[in-house]
Amino acid sequence: MNFSVQIKVMPLRELLDPQGKAVMGGLQNLGIKTIQDVRIGKNIQLQIEATTPEEAKKIAENASTKLLANPVMEYFEITLL
Amino acid sequence: MNFSVQIKVMPLRELLDPQGKAVMGGLQNLGIKTIQDVRIGKNIQLQIEATTPEEAKKIAENASTKLLANPVMEYFEITLL
Repeated sequence: MNFSVQIKVMPLRELLDPQGKAVMGGLQNLGIKTIQDVRIGKNIQLQIEATTPEEAKKIAENASTKLLANPVMEYFEITLL
Repeated sequence: MNFSVQIKVMPLRELLDPQGKAVMGGLQNLGIKTIQDVRIGKNIQLQIEATTPEEAKKIAENASTKLLANPVMEYFEITLL
């Protein structure tokens, strides 16, 4: 069976997010002043061939720790769609 | 009130996603062969000051169309957390 899995990779909360800060500056220059914080991460969608949802999740977790997320700077969340 | 809004910005389904293709190649080199497709987009988290959830959503939509997403290559989805 084919499973659609979504992985959210975000910068750790303890760390500054310079990309987010830059975007917030851009938004304020555009006159959007009610936005107080911006954090930018990655959203990765995988199509995984597996027999059970649990297996698909495990494959996604393996891929995240091995390649998709850098644990020094990022955390990740896996959702089965 | 402060609202937490999440914006998912993904490459349009009709378009190739070279970044995703590269990551898929990397995963296969690592021996993870059950992943059949990878698409990579952005995940943006905003803290918005607004009086109602509807207003917060509108501000996020405005920010997305004006700055965060490029409609020629991307679509976006807004979720209130």
